[in-house]
Amino acid sequence: MRPRIVIIGGGFGGMAAIHALRGVAADITLVDRTNHFLFQPLLYQVATAALSPADIATASRALLRRDANVEVLMAEVTGIDPDRRRVHLVESQDLTYDYLILATGCRYSFFGHDEWAPYVKELKNLADALAIRDIVLAAFERAEETQDPEELRRLLTFVIVGAGPTGVELAGTIAELSRSTLVRDFKRIQPQSARIILCEAGNRVLAAFPEKLSAYGAQVLRELGIELRLGEAVTAIDADGLDVGESRIETDCILWCAGTQAAPAAGWIGAKTGKHGGIAVLPDCSVPGHPEIFAIGDVASFSLASGQSLPGLAPVAKQQGAHVGNMLKRLIAGETSRPPFEYRDYGTMAVIGRSRAVADFGRFTLTGWPAWLAWSMVHLMLLIDFRSRVLVFVNWSWAWFTYGRGARLLIGTPPARKRSKSRPPQAVAGTEGIQHDKDIRG
Amino acid sequence: MRPRIVIIGGGFGGMAAIHALRGVAADITLVDRTNHFLFQPLLYQVATAALSPADIATASRALLRRDANVEVLMAEVTGIDPDRRRVHLVESQDLTYDYLILATGCRYSFFGHDEWAPYVKELKNLADALAIRDIVLAAFERAEETQDPEELRRLLTFVIVGAGPTGVELAGTIAELSRSTLVRDFKRIQPQSARIILCEAGNRVLAAFPEKLSAYGAQVLRELGIELRLGEAVTAIDADGLDVGESRIETDCILWCAGTQAAPAAGWIGAKTGKHGGIAVLPDCSVPGHPEIFAIGDVASFSLASGQSLPGLAPVAKQQGAHVGNMLKRLIAGETSRPPFEYRDYGTMAVIGRSRAVADFGRFTLTGWPAWLAWSMVHLMLLIDFRSRVLVFVNWSWAWFTYGRGARLLIGTPPARKRSKSRPPQAVAGTEGIQHDKDIRG
Repeated sequence: MRPRIVIIGGGFGGMAAIHALRGVAADITLVDRTNHFLFQPLLYQVATAALSPADIATASRALLRRDANVEVLMAEVTGIDPDRRRVHLVESQDLTYDYLILATGCRYSFFGHDEWAPYVKELKNLADALAIRDIVLAAFERAEETQDPEELRRLLTFVIVGAGPTGVELAGTIAELSRSTLVRDFKRIQPQSARIILCEAGNRVLAAFPEKLSAYGAQVLRELGIELRLGEAVTAIDADGLDVGESRIETDCILWCAGTQAAPAAGWIGAKTGKHGGIAVLPDCSVPGHPEIFAIGDVASFSLASGQSLPGLAPVAKQQGAHVGNMLKRLIAGETSRPPFEYRDYGTMAVIGRSRAVADFGRFTLTGWPAWLAWSMVHLMLLIDFRSRVLVFVNWSWAWFTYGRGARLLIGTPPARKRSKSRPPQAVAGTEGIQHDKDIRG
Repeated sequence: MRPRIVIIGGGFGGMAAIHALRGVAADITLVDRTNHFLFQPLLYQVATAALSPADIATASRALLRRDANVEVLMAEVTGIDPDRRRVHLVESQDLTYDYLILATGCRYSFFGHDEWAPYVKELKNLADALAIRDIVLAAFERAEETQDPEELRRLLTFVIVGAGPTGVELAGTIAELSRSTLVRDFKRIQPQSARIILCEAGNRVLAAFPEKLSAYGAQVLRELGIELRLGEAVTAIDADGLDVGESRIETDCILWCAGTQAAPAAGWIGAKTGKHGGIAVLPDCSVPGHPEIFAIGDVASFSLASGQSLPGLAPVAKQQGAHVGNMLKRLIAGETSRPPFEYRDYGTMAVIGRSRAVADFGRFTLTGWPAWLAWSMVHLMLLIDFRSRVLVFVNWSWAWFTYGRGARLLIGTPPARKRSKSRPPQAVAGTEGIQHDKDIRG
């Protein structure tokens, strides 16, 4: 009988595993909560109105159309029975497997303060990105309307927590949105006066990069008018703002890009966890005690000989996916060897703003224009299909030449304004939004 | 003192009025419920995953950036005091005006059956389009999962009510989605077996077109495998389906494209209404008794000498907007003449499917390829900016050559499945969607 392989999660890791398994004599099922593969490195550009969701996401089924041995299931996993080799799904029959690949990624962690979750926005999927876009764009619209100077100040205060690549990219693009794109479009407010605050508990931005790149990044961020709060931890978050170090910031917009947590996949199989709650895996990426289960990408905690763990980066997930896929191919063909996974670091990059980026290629580093050009070209190249490449290229070109943002659309229901909290819901602007917005504009 | 002009609604009519008023010595305020101008003729392509919202919508502020005398306010109108010349807004100060232009468009009407509203989806704005996209795409995903043949049948039944241009366009593109795009992507179900039913109480499709074009349209729709139910009225709609004529159709997806209603702007000013609840206007587009108030586009009911009313088409709105804008310009300059509005009909078109359309230019008509080519070129040309034109062209070309749909993304919260109604919400797939979907895929 053909072995059954179940892959949970269709991100970089899961997709790389499927590609490596192409044509293998096995029945493969990809289970994903969404219906699309998302090119996450550009997600912040959806959140900041530069790109559309469809520019960086492609239907998984369309990508796997030619793989006759792959079945795609859009479903939610609720648990795994590793002894009976079954995956439990919401409202669907269990899936059975001979081999299981866990590639469920990670989410942000609140360092034990889960009560902060309702007051912040994370950026992990397309719905998050669109929600952030709504919040940011709506803040400027409301600021234009308000007569209350205090509300104006709060509306135009944007706080980003965590100065890793995502936090830096978000802060940089929100700064440019307010300083360049919107500045010409509002007549009452000065969008360029928006306060953008990047908080980082550590001592430098882009801590995973060499120190001189961090220094360059901090300098560019400051030139963009971003307030850097380094070495100051967030100590409280509530509906009106947050406490950072010794001071209080009143804001409606807190974007959370700090810490990661790999839950809940480890719990499904009762696995031992390593860094960030990731499943501690053996050198071949399998789970101790379960040679038929593999964990790859952000959900895994892979320890190097040095004692360090591999970082949560797309290339790690892709390479681990390819490693496990190739190994399974050989195991299915009857081989028994399980070579250890070896990560090849081709370098890391982060973009800070228009024509400003940092790139660390190990032997040498780049900053400024050259780094930005390298970043742009590499990301265009890595996009998964030709259509995405053309669309992203058109949008980037347009944005670069005009300083415009093509996807400046408020579509969802903007959250009710603070000062209207006590009013009955039917009197709050925009709350009819999705259900009954019948284009009687005004 | 400079006169104040308030324009409510930034669609085709309102924007045309603003353009005509360019440079006039007046302070203009555009009030719109959304932050964007929407090219509504292509909205059905967003609903059917061919285009992204940002391809056909542009931030109103960006469009009006160079008009120093125009202020844009994203706000919701709650009423108008025509005697004191004030516009009431939700949570904002009243606006005062010397001239008021009502361009609030229309919504669909349920012919007195407002209780049907919760069970159907309309297509009037971007949120509607994305909701329809979610419903249609999710239906196929769920069908792939279900083991229940009855549920499968209901999930793959799509009903469109109203065979005007929007209904025909939606039916045609959903048919092509199921017959061409999705057919290769699912392994358990046959997407091409989806039942697509177009219901029309009248005797023919595209009733506003000459009879021979209706006949051609009906033939193409039938070739696409669409069931036409002509001359059969919808008599009941509930959560499980609808009654059409003598028969019952079980379905989760009812798209409503029938009838229009111009409420509530007429009520705001206590105006007399004409066809479809539109404000009955004088030949100069002003409201009887209020020479300072104008109604244009779908919110107006403009009677021709023949006794007929002008149809609810984008060109009517655009021409009326330009007419009122130009007239106001002259009135402000001290002239007193109020010429009557004259509609110039350049022809109407509707697309039915890939390479199939109808076009009525009065003196001659087109069908098939030539009509489709004309439709495509005219719509590309009419798009409001260069960026949209390039993006739509890329997406159309890609779709044409590959039969693909680039925006096949399920992003929002797919509605809970029927059979899970009795289950507690936390057990329903996807309901965490927007709030807590943290990319732990699976």
